[in-house]
Amino acid sequence: MPGFDPSTLRYDANGLIPCIAQEAATGEVLMMAWMSAEAVARTLETGRVTYWSRSRAAFWVKGESSGHVQELVELRVDCDRDCLLALVRQTGPACHTNRRSCFYTAVRDGQEVELMSPE
Amino acid sequence: MPGFDPSTLRYDANGLIPCIAQEAATGEVLMMAWMSAEAVARTLETGRVTYWSRSRAAFWVKGESSGHVQELVELRVDCDRDCLLALVRQTGPACHTNRRSCFYTAVRDGQEVELMSPE
Repeated sequence: MPGFDPSTLRYDANGLIPCIAQEAATGEVLMMAWMSAEAVARTLETGRVTYWSRSRAAFWVKGESSGHVQELVELRVDCDRDCLLALVRQTGPACHTNRRSCFYTAVRDGQEVELMSPE
Repeated sequence: MPGFDPSTLRYDANGLIPCIAQEAATGEVLMMAWMSAEAVARTLETGRVTYWSRSRAAFWVKGESSGHVQELVELRVDCDRDCLLALVRQTGPACHTNRRSCFYTAVRDGQEVELMSPE
């Protein structure tokens, strides 16, 4: 079987692919961010989940400044090769609001409900 | 608290927002697809997860033809309001390849490994 080649994934017009981060131990979905082919390669090489920051136009080693790192447990590719799922061990909160997950707002009975507070 | 308004989400240049579908009972991430504001509204109104098919340029009521429907348990919004997480009850396989999840390929030791077979 040939080795995995990040260039065989399908990237959007900006050369990016969405990556869902899921806590390996609990299954909680933590966040979604974007990777370039080089970010995919760096993630696999280093075991530290590395995104491409669209706002800063720079590599974003998750937790590099906050300490809230994501250690890669396993990278998965979807059927269309245009989305990634990273199983991770998250240190501290994943969200920049200091919440465990970015998905802390639920829509219930037509209202927005906050599910978790900053840690 | 004001009611939830799909138009307050942040859509990309094509008017779409990514939505991650997660099996509510197990936490398994099933797939990622795209929604327009109208698809978000229809999902909440009907309780049947409804995407926007980019290839067909049409609403895509998941399972409408295959029977592999996704019943909405809860819709969640992320911190930046540019990604959704749908907790669902999935009937049958979520993937068009008849696998339970679209994320059936893992990258292990630089090789692609298939984790599950068609049902």
